[in-house]
Amino acid sequence: MRTMKAVVIDPDQRRVILADRPVPEPGPGEALVRVRLAGICGTDLEMVQGYMRFAGVPGHEFVGKVERCDSAPQWVGRRVVGEINAACGACEACAKGHGRHCPTRTVMGILGRDGAMATHCVLPVANLHEVPAHLGDEHAVFAEPIAAALEVAETAHVKPSHEVLMLGDGRLAQAIGQVLLLIGCDLTVAGKHRNKLDILQSRGARTVAHDEIPDRKWDIVVEATGSPDGPAQALARCRPLGTVCLKSTVAAGAGIPVVPTIVDEIRVVGSRCGPFAPALRLLASGRIEVAPLISGVWPLEKAPEAFVFAQSREVLKVLLDASM
Amino acid sequence: MRTMKAVVIDPDQRRVILADRPVPEPGPGEALVRVRLAGICGTDLEMVQGYMRFAGVPGHEFVGKVERCDSAPQWVGRRVVGEINAACGACEACAKGHGRHCPTRTVMGILGRDGAMATHCVLPVANLHEVPAHLGDEHAVFAEPIAAALEVAETAHVKPSHEVLMLGDGRLAQAIGQVLLLIGCDLTVAGKHRNKLDILQSRGARTVAHDEIPDRKWDIVVEATGSPDGPAQALARCRPLGTVCLKSTVAAGAGIPVVPTIVDEIRVVGSRCGPFAPALRLLASGRIEVAPLISGVWPLEKAPEAFVFAQSREVLKVLLDASM
Repeated sequence: MRTMKAVVIDPDQRRVILADRPVPEPGPGEALVRVRLAGICGTDLEMVQGYMRFAGVPGHEFVGKVERCDSAPQWVGRRVVGEINAACGACEACAKGHGRHCPTRTVMGILGRDGAMATHCVLPVANLHEVPAHLGDEHAVFAEPIAAALEVAETAHVKPSHEVLMLGDGRLAQAIGQVLLLIGCDLTVAGKHRNKLDILQSRGARTVAHDEIPDRKWDIVVEATGSPDGPAQALARCRPLGTVCLKSTVAAGAGIPVVPTIVDEIRVVGSRCGPFAPALRLLASGRIEVAPLISGVWPLEKAPEAFVFAQSREVLKVLLDASM
Repeated sequence: MRTMKAVVIDPDQRRVILADRPVPEPGPGEALVRVRLAGICGTDLEMVQGYMRFAGVPGHEFVGKVERCDSAPQWVGRRVVGEINAACGACEACAKGHGRHCPTRTVMGILGRDGAMATHCVLPVANLHEVPAHLGDEHAVFAEPIAAALEVAETAHVKPSHEVLMLGDGRLAQAIGQVLLLIGCDLTVAGKHRNKLDILQSRGARTVAHDEIPDRKWDIVVEATGSPDGPAQALARCRPLGTVCLKSTVAAGAGIPVVPTIVDEIRVVGSRCGPFAPALRLLASGRIEVAPLISGVWPLEKAPEAFVFAQSREVLKVLLDASM
């Protein structure tokens, strides 16, 4: 049996370890991918703390090369990124084209399916997107978070004339901020980290400290703090008839306040995974800048240390290199 | 009486002439602007042919410096661009914040108000936007057409995942194309001019000849041809439940077809002038590229020749320089 190096979550010790695992066997319609880079996401850090009770191989942001694909051999050798929701393809949600909301879906590195923090991973070939030839791996690995950022503009009609407040300045917020600035809206970012705010400010956002948000009402408020009181903060900042877009999944918290939602007739919209094709278009055209977002590239073997590093306050994206 | 050089439409001869006119006297709440640059728009060319029966000074794309502003003297000396709709400020539309739709509005260089193709022009100070210090005049003069382009994204929710077809490759289409590409959507541009299509293709759009549009149905179709059969073409290309966004004002034509609008449940949305603030943000951040759009800068005195040049098939934006 062929084995590989893999990062595995150890839920008892609340850490990741490096382990030898069998190279996964692709099922029908699936492809085996040799991973080049995998990104550490806030969700990964939360899962180490017990979120989703996931005890397998994490990693849902990756770029790699297809090594085997019996059902569609033309994919072998292609450099790919992949959508993380594996749908059943047969249920009512799937029939409506909403595979990302298939009730029996597995989610790569999060739910019922091992992820990409290993030398190899497996995904349905239907989930794969070929990476444009001139787009480097360090850019392509951002396809998943940029897609998630674009889901803000999928779920809410962010108009160029809108005054938008984003709560949060972390990994996901950075991606959302870049996408929102491309629309042309008047973006104010509230955060706790001057170095992270500076990145978005240099691209044209207004920035304010988390506790100094101007006392006014925004057309759209994007919640990307990862903090349990984020939704209540977002509601409090939204104008009547405005939209609150909830991006950060928080397991615990006080919930979305009912009274301002009704009294101010606010539209609250959840937003999770997004479309990969436009993410690749924006990355390939150079409209998304990833260099300032990468805090470090660590060899896969150093994943335990990389996870500790990724939890530091000042750190943004940490990439694991499985080719080293 | 102080006089100035001005371009004037001669509707009988279907041409523009250069004339001496009195420097306009700003009314209450108005500012006198010393014009630096003014752009020739498709609407200007149509007005020369009789559109709007306008016989005054054309020009609604400009950048200049405020020379006099009695009601708000702090504006004197500021470099400005200006919104072209001058609203009454008192009617029901204005009270709802829809001054661009004020029924008794005048429109700079188009309706009841002289325009900017002169050394001086007048606008309500409420219409002015200061140009950021580092933004050059050649960029700032595009604020009006970029604002008009952004109105597509104001009136239609263009999602990053949408497949969008734009009919047209001319001046306005170039501005719309750049704005749509920033959203990340999958944009196909159909046009008749290879050199104009190439500009948008180099920025990431797919392009096709006008008569070779793939036989499929787009999520959103933007009509920017300036051709009388444009609306019918747009309806025919839109998917059921999709959106047709009409941008080019065409005086004559067969109208918007009723049957496909109803049978395919298409949302038809008109789109005219747009918001200046996001246009200036996108120009100031370098996200809009104007260099490939400028076909020439002519001195104001050469306006008659510049108008003839602007009608050539291959030509995009022609700027008139009133400082020469």
